[in-house]
Amino acid sequence: MSTALCTVCKRRDAVFMRPYSGEKLCARCFCGSIKDKVRVTIAKYDMFESTDKIMVAVSGGKDSVTLLHILAKIEKAFPKASLCAVTVDEGIRGYRNEALKFATSNCRKLGIKQAVTSFKELYGNSLDEIVKITLEKAESAKGLTPCAYCGVLRRRALNLAARKAGVDKLATAHNLDDETQTILLNILHGDALRIARVKPVLAEVHPKFVQRVKPMCEVPEKEVALYAYLKRKEFQSVPCPYAPTALRSDIRVMLNRMEEKHAGIKFTLIKSVERIRLALEAAAEEVKLQDCRECGEPTVGKICKPCQMLRKLDIL
Amino acid sequence: MSTALCTVCKRRDAVFMRPYSGEKLCARCFCGSIKDKVRVTIAKYDMFESTDKIMVAVSGGKDSVTLLHILAKIEKAFPKASLCAVTVDEGIRGYRNEALKFATSNCRKLGIKQAVTSFKELYGNSLDEIVKITLEKAESAKGLTPCAYCGVLRRRALNLAARKAGVDKLATAHNLDDETQTILLNILHGDALRIARVKPVLAEVHPKFVQRVKPMCEVPEKEVALYAYLKRKEFQSVPCPYAPTALRSDIRVMLNRMEEKHAGIKFTLIKSVERIRLALEAAAEEVKLQDCRECGEPTVGKICKPCQMLRKLDIL
Repeated sequence: MSTALCTVCKRRDAVFMRPYSGEKLCARCFCGSIKDKVRVTIAKYDMFESTDKIMVAVSGGKDSVTLLHILAKIEKAFPKASLCAVTVDEGIRGYRNEALKFATSNCRKLGIKQAVTSFKELYGNSLDEIVKITLEKAESAKGLTPCAYCGVLRRRALNLAARKAGVDKLATAHNLDDETQTILLNILHGDALRIARVKPVLAEVHPKFVQRVKPMCEVPEKEVALYAYLKRKEFQSVPCPYAPTALRSDIRVMLNRMEEKHAGIKFTLIKSVERIRLALEAAAEEVKLQDCRECGEPTVGKICKPCQMLRKLDIL
Repeated sequence: MSTALCTVCKRRDAVFMRPYSGEKLCARCFCGSIKDKVRVTIAKYDMFESTDKIMVAVSGGKDSVTLLHILAKIEKAFPKASLCAVTVDEGIRGYRNEALKFATSNCRKLGIKQAVTSFKELYGNSLDEIVKITLEKAESAKGLTPCAYCGVLRRRALNLAARKAGVDKLATAHNLDDETQTILLNILHGDALRIARVKPVLAEVHPKFVQRVKPMCEVPEKEVALYAYLKRKEFQSVPCPYAPTALRSDIRVMLNRMEEKHAGIKFTLIKSVERIRLALEAAAEEVKLQDCRECGEPTVGKICKPCQMLRKLDIL
């Protein structure tokens, strides 16, 4: 590729061509554009108040490390806001230790207080142990992948940590690809109504739920990765040994192929589904939450999802 | 492939393995299963009354020819019901003539009365002529493909023919693949709310609209093709020279790839979206239709879609 000048500053050499806008960007203008995008998303969805105590979920991967750095920069303009971090140690041998190290080193560099919580501490078992139990009890734990357990139990762990720290918002590093994949996964999996829950701000109406926000939900995964690389951030780059489901992997490949041929299609998908979501929300009756009979956390049924899972494993 | 016995009759050699059910079927049991599937779909969605006058939209392609034959068989059990056909000649040189021939020969063989209508007669211009005008007036007709014109104008033509014939129902040969492609196309195209209109029975609340039903909407395209082939039906097999949009083609390829890896995913998609649809319908306010100022046909706005299109072309 012959070098081209950055279409924004018109001075430095471009390092990235953004297919859906046609812009050619130098490293500096590219990184600036990502920060701007996150700022715009935050404003558009009213994610934060200027006095918010914000907790960032930091796994140590490229997405959460990038989010932590960007929020740390944005937060400087809001002296009454504060930032802290939480890392969940799911207990995945040969993978989580290294990620934890990166999460901690990034927090330390930025002077951000980091809380660490773990599956072992909360549920008496690490994810590795839970997976072992599911393999032994194939019958009762049927149909549930390690990712299914991990997702439900991690969300619970994050909410508990956020409540304990008394924060106003919990920020997670979901990017545009995560969101579009989840939407198609829900549709192709038969859970179409769940797409109503894939949204930038998830505020469940209960004082025990900390509001969750996704400031990077409009940044494509590729661009998050490039940002982390250009900024020379340290992050865990080994993928989790528990691979995502075959269906999610196929959807990822398919969406990337479609995006290559029809630049911008991931954005269109998100906007398109937003319309369904708003219509569904307008139609939905208010869900009455009650206390889980096992753990007291709020739930729509009698027993919350994490307790149902732990029961299946006989480790409650 | 070594031959295997049909898992239904256990007597004849199987010619087809149905991936999403595991059945191996001989030609006879396969064809029977398609007819049964159509019967079940008709019953499930209450598509017909026993006294209905039914018009089948027959283009002469494999789908509509198959539907005509299957409905002719099913109808024999309902002596008070009646069947007729309509073919729309869009005016596509080197393509439509042959299809028209197959449509007519199939109707004749079955002793079914066939009405023929055409774009030329209804709109003063064939599709070929309309496409030529759009190419000359690139500005005002911008963004509209031949398929966009054809779809809107053909639906109008079918409704006019059905009303003229005084029938109760208009049956079209949309198959499972058509329906799943349209759903994803709407979502990826930003028209997600339109998925509420992709459904087996479309009854618009206006006396001028004839109710449309899709008895084959749960039969995969591959199986319709195999049925037509095994039954040695004559049909147009050359594809339309106006290729579908690039996006629909890519979605077709992608869905077929997903189906190959995750058998049954097209069915899951349809069922999944049905839930969204029902929720959206429950939420939707009743749409008030009024007469189009140009042609008097019912429409949600002031000018109906076909008239809007014809206006753009300056041929109204």
